[in-house]
Amino acid sequence: MIRVGIIGASGYTGSKLAYYLSRHTETEIVFATSRKEKGRKMSDLYGYLRGLCDVVFTDPQAAHESEIDVLFSCAPDQASMRVVPEFYERNVRIVDLAGDYRMDSAESYERWYGEPHVSPEYIEKAVFGLTELNRDRIRTTRLVSNPGCYPTSVILGLAPLIREGLVDCSGIHVNSVSGISGAGRDLKLFKLFYEADSNVLPYSIGRRHKHVGEMEQELSKIAGKQCTVTFAPHVVPMKTGIVSTMVVTLKKQAVKNELDSLYGAAYDGEFFVRYYSDRLPESKFVADTNFCDIGLVPVEGTDKIIVVSTICNLGKGASGQAVQNMNVMFGFDEREGLL
Amino acid sequence: MIRVGIIGASGYTGSKLAYYLSRHTETEIVFATSRKEKGRKMSDLYGYLRGLCDVVFTDPQAAHESEIDVLFSCAPDQASMRVVPEFYERNVRIVDLAGDYRMDSAESYERWYGEPHVSPEYIEKAVFGLTELNRDRIRTTRLVSNPGCYPTSVILGLAPLIREGLVDCSGIHVNSVSGISGAGRDLKLFKLFYEADSNVLPYSIGRRHKHVGEMEQELSKIAGKQCTVTFAPHVVPMKTGIVSTMVVTLKKQAVKNELDSLYGAAYDGEFFVRYYSDRLPESKFVADTNFCDIGLVPVEGTDKIIVVSTICNLGKGASGQAVQNMNVMFGFDEREGLL
Amino acid sequence: MIRVGIIGASGYTGSKLAYYLSRHTETEIVFATSRKEKGRKMSDLYGYLRGLCDVVFTDPQAAHESEIDVLFSCAPDQASMRVVPEFYERNVRIVDLAGDYRMDSAESYERWYGEPHVSPEYIEKAVFGLTELNRDRIRTTRLVSNPGCYPTSVILGLAPLIREGLVDCSGIHVNSVSGISGAGRDLKLFKLFYEADSNVLPYSIGRRHKHVGEMEQELSKIAGKQCTVTFAPHVVPMKTGIVSTMVVTLKKQAVKNELDSLYGAAYDGEFFVRYYSDRLPESKFVADTNFCDIGLVPVEGTDKIIVVSTICNLGKGASGQAVQNMNVMFGFDEREGLL
Amino acid sequence: MIRVGIIGASGYTGSKLAYYLSRHTETEIVFATSRKEKGRKMSDLYGYLRGLCDVVFTDPQAAHESEIDVLFSCAPDQASMRVVPEFYERNVRIVDLAGDYRMDSAESYERWYGEPHVSPEYIEKAVFGLTELNRDRIRTTRLVSNPGCYPTSVILGLAPLIREGLVDCSGIHVNSVSGISGAGRDLKLFKLFYEADSNVLPYSIGRRHKHVGEMEQELSKIAGKQCTVTFAPHVVPMKTGIVSTMVVTLKKQAVKNELDSLYGAAYDGEFFVRYYSDRLPESKFVADTNFCDIGLVPVEGTDKIIVVSTICNLGKGASGQAVQNMNVMFGFDEREGLL
Repeated sequence: MIRVGIIGASGYTGSKLAYYLSRHTETEIVFATSRKEKGRKMSDLYGYLRGLCDVVFTDPQAAHESEIDVLFSCAPDQASMRVVPEFYERNVRIVDLAGDYRMDSAESYERWYGEPHVSPEYIEKAVFGLTELNRDRIRTTRLVSNPGCYPTSVILGLAPLIREGLVDCSGIHVNSVSGISGAGRDLKLFKLFYEADSNVLPYSIGRRHKHVGEMEQELSKIAGKQCTVTFAPHVVPMKTGIVSTMVVTLKKQAVKNELDSLYGAAYDGEFFVRYYSDRLPESKFVADTNFCDIGLVPVEGTDKIIVVSTICNLGKGASGQAVQNMNVMFGFDEREGLL
Repeated sequence: MIRVGIIGASGYTGSKLAYYLSRHTETEIVFATSRKEKGRKMSDLYGYLRGLCDVVFTDPQAAHESEIDVLFSCAPDQASMRVVPEFYERNVRIVDLAGDYRMDSAESYERWYGEPHVSPEYIEKAVFGLTELNRDRIRTTRLVSNPGCYPTSVILGLAPLIREGLVDCSGIHVNSVSGISGAGRDLKLFKLFYEADSNVLPYSIGRRHKHVGEMEQELSKIAGKQCTVTFAPHVVPMKTGIVSTMVVTLKKQAVKNELDSLYGAAYDGEFFVRYYSDRLPESKFVADTNFCDIGLVPVEGTDKIIVVSTICNLGKGASGQAVQNMNVMFGFDEREGLL
Repeated sequence: MIRVGIIGASGYTGSKLAYYLSRHTETEIVFATSRKEKGRKMSDLYGYLRGLCDVVFTDPQAAHESEIDVLFSCAPDQASMRVVPEFYERNVRIVDLAGDYRMDSAESYERWYGEPHVSPEYIEKAVFGLTELNRDRIRTTRLVSNPGCYPTSVILGLAPLIREGLVDCSGIHVNSVSGISGAGRDLKLFKLFYEADSNVLPYSIGRRHKHVGEMEQELSKIAGKQCTVTFAPHVVPMKTGIVSTMVVTLKKQAVKNELDSLYGAAYDGEFFVRYYSDRLPESKFVADTNFCDIGLVPVEGTDKIIVVSTICNLGKGASGQAVQNMNVMFGFDEREGLL
Repeated sequence: MIRVGIIGASGYTGSKLAYYLSRHTETEIVFATSRKEKGRKMSDLYGYLRGLCDVVFTDPQAAHESEIDVLFSCAPDQASMRVVPEFYERNVRIVDLAGDYRMDSAESYERWYGEPHVSPEYIEKAVFGLTELNRDRIRTTRLVSNPGCYPTSVILGLAPLIREGLVDCSGIHVNSVSGISGAGRDLKLFKLFYEADSNVLPYSIGRRHKHVGEMEQELSKIAGKQCTVTFAPHVVPMKTGIVSTMVVTLKKQAVKNELDSLYGAAYDGEFFVRYYSDRLPESKFVADTNFCDIGLVPVEGTDKIIVVSTICNLGKGASGQAVQNMNVMFGFDEREGLL
């Protein structure tokens, strides 16, 4: 049994982590901190956890005094980079669900997050935790920066095309719809049921969303050249789920069955990525799971391909992938806790 | 009072028409036909109409025997082109909500609808009923072909840019999300609440949806050159509403406030088109109305503009615009029945 | 044109009032106050009002300085009883949507609202504004206390049975489900889409909800004896709508068609109450309307009747009935603005 | 590994069974029949099962030719009683999810199901499979009749009170709300998203629903005297979930903490029944699980208690309890496959 700590555990990602870990045979939760909810049981905030995970939230202070093997940081952006270094120095393995170590440089972080980085020396220690692409490096690092939800869907959806040099990297368009849990649990008017039900809310359209930086950075690494992404995210009336619908321009002719082979080969053996050669996936196929489902359509009469990639934003887009990464780091079966 | 007939009236567009007409001070419904529901009251199928519109569905035969001033055809594609000619010859004014007279030629119809046209000689008599663009011709025609829901949102959203020659017409991308009523009332598995709730369903992606033909045809007319549209529609868990998010490439530099002026001028005086210079519209703003709300974002660091256009698919996207067109044809206030 | 003021106008009832009044041919809104939102347009908070009601929220102070004919108070409980007296003394007619003048005595108010009443001398001036039952008194009063949402559905649903002395008043059970707007617009966790979607939340079960006092008081007046109500309200995943399902015990035998006649006669001529002899109503029949729809079932093999009564909590349950009451007070057509 | 067969497997209960069994370490699915879907993979109908359960539907004929240890019948009422006997005679253990063996006699069956029973000699062989109440008999029977969804919530919710003789059995009122999957997967208009969203639909109110017979029969057994139930079910806009809110009259005084003790003791050691002494449960706590969550409120000033009991209709209300029963029959851990 490995000892697990969770920081900032009272939000949606924290509760999902607790849920996955409650089913994991190799872990025990040593602490789950929440400044706001300390003293309450997690199962009082999340009734479905009653009897499954009744851990009591503690003050963040407790985190500094407990022996653990792995830390999940569900602290918000800007907070996480303040607490992660201590644990890193204590030799604890870390999965950081915030965005603080996702960008490759302090400059890039400040460009996309609008704040200076306070522990830039740890940036290069962090591995970008898109499991299927970086598994070997995740296995040996002590600090995994868990990817953002939108980037997870986008990068897995486009990686085979881009790695193969098939598409024009200068004009990638991503349209995404997301369930509302992607916006977290703090109280904001637009998240009220009355405001969000029967509504589609476009927001941060253009190249303003901080996930654009993450997509461009990681796709550029795969491409070996600069990728530019235009991004149009929308909130739709669902609790969870992301569907990213991406338009790319082919540099050379490609037919459907070649593309099927390309994706089939790219994700052969990957349990959590399901490529659909016969149809397009729907978001309910992956709800509350760690799967990423992908399909594509070459657009007749044009040089475009439209790729559809869907994940659960709290699963593969956050806590599920965090557990998957922990499993890789500790040599467990990657599916442990996730089925 | 003008005498109104509705064919194929038992579906969602028929019931919305009846609702709008029940509030209209200048119309009376003379018949509403439905082969399947004949003998039942419309308000038995649509409880909210009780006391407002208790018209009884009659056999389609009744349509041939009644004196009317205007016919709304809510018959399905392929059926409408079989009944419209008779009424045209009887000097009845017609608003056809089907797609049968939207394409400019029988060839084009067959290309996009997959069936030969059976009354091609009426195609050129029909005016494409996008009210704001074709008001003068609607005023004097006897046959209005009411636009499709997706094309209404797309054409109104892009017309100012395209008319001005600002964008590259060869690569227009449209991503749309739609409430489920767009798919009609006939029983199909994917429309069940259990299947559609908490789900996003991408479908007919590429250039396969018949509305692509309609968008390309009408945008090309505005552009004075061929436009090519890639289209990615999705069903989202809402009863009604469409949000179309469109990406176009600018041919010359344009700044936000010039674009604001362009759209402001284009829709100045148009009650049912609301341009948002200050924010992006949401689908709930137009739910159950005849409004089309539009906003846009130039994408920083690129030559792209993303335009967001939202309508109610049963309102401006179908029955609302049909009533608006009838109002134009008969010289009524355009808003009559629609507020 | 009568001049209208609205206090506490930024919430859901305020916005619905503005919507109804924007369609009313005899009213103009002189002010709409909101301490929190002053300076913003109502249509910025509620996008669907753009072009229909672009009134700017003002500081509550403005209310004291403007000439008006009628005041709608959408202030919260406890606040309303502090502002209403001033307007009453200024000879303004008032429709109070808060609960402050619903109970017949200061003692009863304190029992159910948990606070002492600060303007008890106005209690007896107020008429309980259930239009269909108290129309004559509403016509001549200067202060209407608009009923609560649950009580509106319950009292209209049971009045015919109780007036006729058919049921045992000591054991009335009311089970209600409500859309979430009944809980208002202030930020609370349980109202988040993520918390409320796909969920049924029972709350305040027993005789604790303040609406129990209102139901018992008004039903007792109709019965001429004490009525006791047990109440089980639930929030269900809808924006609006209430269905109250009530179980009563018959004191004498009654058959369905006699009950149909009883209800038919009771609501004969009432445009906004629709009795269903042939089926049970559903909440969508009354969504966003001022209707109350009622049906009933005698339970075979028992002495029970189950009555189902449904309203829109923001329509007949709040702002719709408030406008209906204003129409009565000023002698307008009762339906004006409400269709 | 035990060999499992499923009949009528293409519906919602069949797919949930397959899901639970795919996680079960001791079972393999030998066949899953569906006349309508034969030849298709279960994961083609239910995308979330891709990679987890890709069993191909076979013609019902296959069921007769395969060696199995246990049969789940998801055939509809009336069909199940035609196929179960054969398997019983073949010494296969059976969990019947239909209602065909729930009533204790052929007469009672015909009274509530409206059809004569065709294999009445098997009725007495069947054990009513409410696991927590009948575990010992389930352990040794070859035929378990899995309870209905509403009765499961009601019987577990009331059993402690009734067993103790605390309540008047002649007047039990049950109000239930249910997600729409309770109505199955066949195509009916009221199940369409457009019809069911934002709506509450009361139906079969009184003593007409066949589940009333099941509730009365089983509660009467516990009481040792006749129980009479009035029942008001409603469909609410959720995919799954039942909340039953029950009103009973106490025969003697009872205080809350005594009732807490009573329920605590009644379900002590029952993993899948969670009693809440501190609050009321919500349906989301049990969504997609095999839990039944219960809370209660004595109604102040009256002799009534209101009990709230919630389950997932596809979990504890159908397929979850079916697997739980199989686990009991074969001596597996009761939670196997269900967490």
